[in-house]
Amino acid sequence: MNGGVREQVGAPRYRMMARLPGIQPCGALNAITDVPGVLVGHRTCRRGALNTGVTAVVPQPGNLFRQKLTAAVEVVNGFGKSTGLMQVAELGSLETPVLLSNTFAVGRCADALIRRAVAENPDIGRGTSTVNAVVCECNDGGLSDIQAMAVTEADALAALDAAGRDCAEGSVGAGTGMTCFGFKGGIGTASRRMTIAGEARHLGVLVLANFGRAGDLVLPDGRRPDPRAGGGPEKGSIIVVLATDVPVDQRQLQRICRRAGAGIARLGTFWGNGSGDVVLGFSTANRIPHDPGPDLLPMQRLHDSRMDDLFRAACEATEEAVLNALCAATPVVGPGGATRPLLSDWLREHDTETPGKEPE
Amino acid sequence: MNGGVREQVGAPRYRMMARLPGIQPCGALNAITDVPGVLVGHRTCRRGALNTGVTAVVPQPGNLFRQKLTAAVEVVNGFGKSTGLMQVAELGSLETPVLLSNTFAVGRCADALIRRAVAENPDIGRGTSTVNAVVCECNDGGLSDIQAMAVTEADALAALDAAGRDCAEGSVGAGTGMTCFGFKGGIGTASRRMTIAGEARHLGVLVLANFGRAGDLVLPDGRRPDPRAGGGPEKGSIIVVLATDVPVDQRQLQRICRRAGAGIARLGTFWGNGSGDVVLGFSTANRIPHDPGPDLLPMQRLHDSRMDDLFRAACEATEEAVLNALCAATPVVGPGGATRPLLSDWLREHDTETPGKEPE
Amino acid sequence: MNGGVREQVGAPRYRMMARLPGIQPCGALNAITDVPGVLVGHRTCRRGALNTGVTAVVPQPGNLFRQKLTAAVEVVNGFGKSTGLMQVAELGSLETPVLLSNTFAVGRCADALIRRAVAENPDIGRGTSTVNAVVCECNDGGLSDIQAMAVTEADALAALDAAGRDCAEGSVGAGTGMTCFGFKGGIGTASRRMTIAGEARHLGVLVLANFGRAGDLVLPDGRRPDPRAGGGPEKGSIIVVLATDVPVDQRQLQRICRRAGAGIARLGTFWGNGSGDVVLGFSTANRIPHDPGPDLLPMQRLHDSRMDDLFRAACEATEEAVLNALCAATPVVGPGGATRPLLSDWLREHDTETPGKEPE
Amino acid sequence: MNGGVREQVGAPRYRMMARLPGIQPCGALNAITDVPGVLVGHRTCRRGALNTGVTAVVPQPGNLFRQKLTAAVEVVNGFGKSTGLMQVAELGSLETPVLLSNTFAVGRCADALIRRAVAENPDIGRGTSTVNAVVCECNDGGLSDIQAMAVTEADALAALDAAGRDCAEGSVGAGTGMTCFGFKGGIGTASRRMTIAGEARHLGVLVLANFGRAGDLVLPDGRRPDPRAGGGPEKGSIIVVLATDVPVDQRQLQRICRRAGAGIARLGTFWGNGSGDVVLGFSTANRIPHDPGPDLLPMQRLHDSRMDDLFRAACEATEEAVLNALCAATPVVGPGGATRPLLSDWLREHDTETPGKEPE
Repeated sequence: MNGGVREQVGAPRYRMMARLPGIQPCGALNAITDVPGVLVGHRTCRRGALNTGVTAVVPQPGNLFRQKLTAAVEVVNGFGKSTGLMQVAELGSLETPVLLSNTFAVGRCADALIRRAVAENPDIGRGTSTVNAVVCECNDGGLSDIQAMAVTEADALAALDAAGRDCAEGSVGAGTGMTCFGFKGGIGTASRRMTIAGEARHLGVLVLANFGRAGDLVLPDGRRPDPRAGGGPEKGSIIVVLATDVPVDQRQLQRICRRAGAGIARLGTFWGNGSGDVVLGFSTANRIPHDPGPDLLPMQRLHDSRMDDLFRAACEATEEAVLNALCAATPVVGPGGATRPLLSDWLREHDTETPGKEPE
Repeated sequence: MNGGVREQVGAPRYRMMARLPGIQPCGALNAITDVPGVLVGHRTCRRGALNTGVTAVVPQPGNLFRQKLTAAVEVVNGFGKSTGLMQVAELGSLETPVLLSNTFAVGRCADALIRRAVAENPDIGRGTSTVNAVVCECNDGGLSDIQAMAVTEADALAALDAAGRDCAEGSVGAGTGMTCFGFKGGIGTASRRMTIAGEARHLGVLVLANFGRAGDLVLPDGRRPDPRAGGGPEKGSIIVVLATDVPVDQRQLQRICRRAGAGIARLGTFWGNGSGDVVLGFSTANRIPHDPGPDLLPMQRLHDSRMDDLFRAACEATEEAVLNALCAATPVVGPGGATRPLLSDWLREHDTETPGKEPE
Repeated sequence: MNGGVREQVGAPRYRMMARLPGIQPCGALNAITDVPGVLVGHRTCRRGALNTGVTAVVPQPGNLFRQKLTAAVEVVNGFGKSTGLMQVAELGSLETPVLLSNTFAVGRCADALIRRAVAENPDIGRGTSTVNAVVCECNDGGLSDIQAMAVTEADALAALDAAGRDCAEGSVGAGTGMTCFGFKGGIGTASRRMTIAGEARHLGVLVLANFGRAGDLVLPDGRRPDPRAGGGPEKGSIIVVLATDVPVDQRQLQRICRRAGAGIARLGTFWGNGSGDVVLGFSTANRIPHDPGPDLLPMQRLHDSRMDDLFRAACEATEEAVLNALCAATPVVGPGGATRPLLSDWLREHDTETPGKEPE
Repeated sequence: MNGGVREQVGAPRYRMMARLPGIQPCGALNAITDVPGVLVGHRTCRRGALNTGVTAVVPQPGNLFRQKLTAAVEVVNGFGKSTGLMQVAELGSLETPVLLSNTFAVGRCADALIRRAVAENPDIGRGTSTVNAVVCECNDGGLSDIQAMAVTEADALAALDAAGRDCAEGSVGAGTGMTCFGFKGGIGTASRRMTIAGEARHLGVLVLANFGRAGDLVLPDGRRPDPRAGGGPEKGSIIVVLATDVPVDQRQLQRICRRAGAGIARLGTFWGNGSGDVVLGFSTANRIPHDPGPDLLPMQRLHDSRMDDLFRAACEATEEAVLNALCAATPVVGPGGATRPLLSDWLREHDTETPGKEPE
C-alpha cells in the first residue's frame, strides 16, 4: 500500500511524564523485545479516511512450525474475532508469528501466515498437518474506514518483514486507528526483569490498546484524565501479547496471562461488554519439536513458589504498556474528520512537577 | 469456479442399508432442515487435483445480525482452525450463517460473511459494532490440493445462495475431499423429533465428517468395517452443526452440543490428538435483538428435567449423520490418484439381510 | 460454641473515612441485603487462640431446593477448597444458602446444609436427587488455630439462624481471623443501585477478605497504606458473594461475577498464586422449579446492551466491600499473640481532610 | 463400623465372560494398581438398609503433600458434589489420596484426609499453606439409606489403611450400593500397557460406576442387555480415577482424562442430565516439591505425537473397567427390599459361545 508511513522514533514514554509506582525493574528497552529473540514489525496504512495497519510479533528466529513455543490464551472478554486461539488453548503451542490488525483484516493476515508457513514447510497439508495462524484484532472503525477491508496479504507480509528489536509505539501498525479511554490509543510495550535460578530473565508485553470508556482512566497516582467531549464512546478491545524467557508450562503461562487482565483493570476499566480483551502468551524456553522423535522431551518448569514474580510482572508491564501506548500516540484524522485528544497533551497540561504547581 | 458440479440426489442413507437401533423418531427429512427455517447450501469445487468446496448452514431467514440466535460451542478436541467461536462462547449468540470449508479457506469464507453482513447492515463498524463471522473447517489435504488455497469469496457466496431445504450428502460442498475412518467421508445429516409442551420440535445435525482412524469404525450393530489398505492415516476432524427449535439458553445448548461428542465416540473414535472436533449449536427460538430496546427480554427456556431428550437426540442424530455421510459418499480422485473406499460398497458386500449370507 | 460474641454495630465504613470516586449510587444499606430477600447471618467463634466463625448468606426466603435461583461461579484463582461450585457451574442454579468459613470447616458446614435441606425436603436422596451444598472458605491460620477444626455443624446452623438484613462487617463470622493487605481483614459488604426497565434494581456484594500482600494496597485516591512490620505474608484468598435482583441468565451472571476480579485488582492485588479468589453469584429473579412441571419456563433476561451497568456495579461494589471490611475490622489476637494493624487507624492518622493538610 | 464385610476375591471379569474387541494389551493385573506405586483400599459398610462405603486410591507411597503429583480434572457432566477439584484444575497437582464415597459422606472423608495430612505435616495451616482434600462421590440412595449420613471419618481412614495392590471389584467400598444401566454397579478397574521410550508404561483406571439408564447398555459386540423391570431409573454418576506412569503435563493429562468420557459413551450412555460424570487423573512421573528449592524443575513430557496411545488407553480401559464393575457386582438388598439384577447373570444366560445356543 502506497500509504505506508515512517514510524516515529523517540516518542515519549509514560515514565518520562509521570510517576509510575512499580516494584519490579524493567528491561533495557522496557519493551517486549527485551525477551531475547522477540522482534516486532509494523506496517502502517494511512490514506484518506484509512488509518489502519498490521503489527507483527515474531516470537523467535528459525522455523516456528518445526520448533514450536509453549503458548497459552486467556480470554478476559470474548467480544472479539481473533483466530487461531482454539488450537493454542488445546495444544499449548504457537507455530506462527502473531499478527495484529483491524477486525476485518483477520482473514488476509491469516492467509499471509499460512502462505509463508507453507513456503517454509512444503509438507504442510500434504505429508504433515496444516498450520494454525494466529491473528488478533481490534476495531478501529472510529478512526478508519474499516468497511474498506483495505489491508492486504502484502501488508501483512510487510509487517513481518519489518520485524526488528526496535518497537515503535503509538499510532503505528495495527495501532494506527485505535482509541483508548477516549484518547488516541495504539501500540505500547513494556517489560520487567527478574532473576530466576541466578540469571536475568524477562517478561515483556505488547498491547494493541483500543479499550476503555472516556472518563474511566485512572493513572497510577490516582489522577483521572478526562478527554471530555473529544472522547468517543467505548467500542473497546485490547490485545495483549505477552512473552517470557522463563520456562513455564501452558498451565502456568495461562495463569500469567490472566494477570494482564488485572493490569488493565487497575487503569479503570471493568472489561466492558463490547470489548474484546484477549491475552496471548508464549515462552521462548523449551522448544517443542513438530516432528516425531524421542518419545520423551526434557523440559524445565518454574517452581510455583516463584509464580508471584511473573504475575506481578504481567500485571505491571501490561499497565505500563497501555500508558506507553497512550503517551506515544500521535494525532490521526479519521472519517468525517474524527480525531482523539492525546494523553501526552493532558499530562503536559497537568504537569505537577512544574514550579508553581502543587505537587501531589 | 468453473469446476462446480451438480450435487447427487437420492443418495443412499444408512437406515436403508443397515439396522440402526435408535430410540427417538427422526423428522420428515431426517435432516438438519427439519428444524423450521434452517437451510443448507453447497458449492462443490472439483478440478484436477482439487476436490474441495463450501457448505453453508443458513440458520434462519431474515437479518441475523439484527435478530441473533442463541448459540453455543463445544470444543471436543481443539486441534482446528475454525474462526468466530470465541465470541459465540462469550455472548451466546450467532449473527451470521455458518460456513464450512477446508482449513485454508477460512479467511476468504469469513470475508464473504463480513461483506454480506455489511451490505445488509451498512452501520456495521461505523454506527454499531463489527460482525462475528463463523467459519469451521476440516483438512481435506489427503484428497485435494489444499495448498492451492483455491476457494474464493465467490465460492462462499455461491454456497450461501444455494441454500435450500434439500440437503445433499456425501462428497459435496465442504465434504468433497473428506475422509472418515479410512472410507470416503463428507457431509451427512440427520434429525430427531420430540414433543415439547405438546408440540412437535426437532433437533437436527449436519456433520462435516473427516475423522477416525481406518479400522476403528464400529457400526451400531457391532460390526467393524475395515477399509484395509485403502484407508489413509488419521488426520482427522469433524465439525458438527446442531440446530434445534426447542427454547434453550446457552448453558443448556452447550451441554446439548457436548453430547454430539458422545455420538461420535460410539462410532469407535476416541477423539484423536490431531482431530479438530468442534460442535456449534444454535436454537431458533428466542431471537435476540442487536439494537437496544426494552431492557428486559422475555425468553422461554426448557425445564432441565427434559434435557435428557435433547441429549439423546444430539447423540443419536450425530451418530446417524456420520453414518449418512459415509453411505452417501461417492468416489473422488485426489492428488497422485489417491482414492478412498466407500462404506456403501462394504455394506452391500456384507448385507446380512440377503438370503444365503450368514448373519454376523 | 460458648465463645460466640456479639457483633459490633455502627462500625466505620470507608465512605465515612475517605473519598470514594465511584459513579453509581449505592443502595439504602450499601449492603448485599439491599437486594430484596437476601439475608446475612454470622456465628463468631473466639476462644483462646481460636478466632474463626461462619457467615451465612441466605439468598431468598422459602424452600430454595424446590425453587432454585440462577447462579454462576467465576474462579479468579483456584487455590482454594470451596465445595459445591462444580454443580453450580454445570446447572447454573443454587439450591442452598451459601456458607463461608475457614478452610478446614468446609465439611461440617456442608453437612449442616445437607441436614437442613433433608429436613425440609424428606425426598432428597430417596424420591428425588441429592442436594448440592455450597461452602466457600479462606485460610485464617495466621490469626486462629485452624488445625483445631473447631467449627461445628451447630455453629453453621447458628449462622443460618442468625440471618437478618443487618450485615455486620469486619472481624465477625467467617471474617473473624482474616488478614487483608497485611491489615486486619474480614467481612465487608456494599451495593449499587440502578434503574432497569423503569424500576430500581440492586447488585450487592459480600466479601470475605483475606487476600493481598502487605504494601500492595492502593486506595481509590492513589494512596498506598503500608502496614509495615505488622503485616503478615500473603497467604491470601477472597470469597465474593454477589447478589442481584436483575434478571440475568447464567452466562450473563458469570460475566458479571468476573468483574468482581477487576474490583479487587484495582486495590492493588494481582491475584496471587496462593490466593483462592472465587466469586459466587446469584440472581433472585426467575425462580427455577426443581420438580417437573410445564416443559417450558418463561424467563426474563437483561438485554446485553445494559450489561456494562452491572459490570461496573460488580467492580465498584466489590472494591468498596473490601474497603469496608478493612475499615470495620477490630483487633484480634491470634496464636502466639499475633495481631494485625487496622486500616481505620491508618486512615485516621493520614486524614487529609483535616485543616492544615493539603487534600489529595 | 461393625458392618464392615470381607471383600470378595476371584470375582468374574468381563474378558472371561464375553468378547472384548480391544487393541491394546492390558497390564498384569488389568487394574489401576498396574501403575507402579498405586494402591487401592475399600471400607464396606453394610448394615440394615445401609449399603455404602469408602474406596481409597493412594497414588504413591510417601508424603504426597511434600512431593505432589501432576493431576488434572475433566468434568464430563458436573451434576455432582465432589470436592477439591477446583484446586487440582488450577494448580495441576494432587497432594492427598483420593477418596470415593456416597454423596453425603464427602465432608467426613475430606476431614479424614485433612487430619491425616496435618498429622504428617504439622506446619499445614501454620507455617505453610492448607491442604486440598480430594473426595468424589456418587449417589447410592437407591440401595442405601443415604440420609443416615452414616460414613464416619473412621471409615475413611479404614479405607486408606486397607490400601493394597489387590483391587476388589463390584459391590465393595464406595461401590457397595451403586447401580449401573439398571444392573448392580460398583467398583471396577482395568489397565493398558504401552511402550514409551523403550520401556513398559501403564495407564490404569478405577471407576465408581453408578450411571446409565436401564436399557441403554451396549456391549462391545453390539448386544444390548436390558435388565427390564428390575432396573431403576437413571439417577446416574460415574467417577473415573485415572493413573499413569507416563510423564505428561497437566494439559496433556486433562486431554487424556477427557477420553474416559468417550469410553463410557461407547457403552451407550449420553452422559445424562442428572449424572455427575467426573474424571480425575494423575501421573506418577515428575514429583512436584511443595517447598521452595531450586527455581527451575527438570521435567519430562511425552511428545504429543504419542498422545493417541494414551487416548485409546483411557477410552478402552474406562470402558472395560465399567464392564468389570458390572460383572463383579454381587447382590445387595437396599431400603424396602430394593435389588438390582446382575449383568453376570445376563451374560451366562446369553452365552453365545455355548454349543446349541444361537449366536445373536
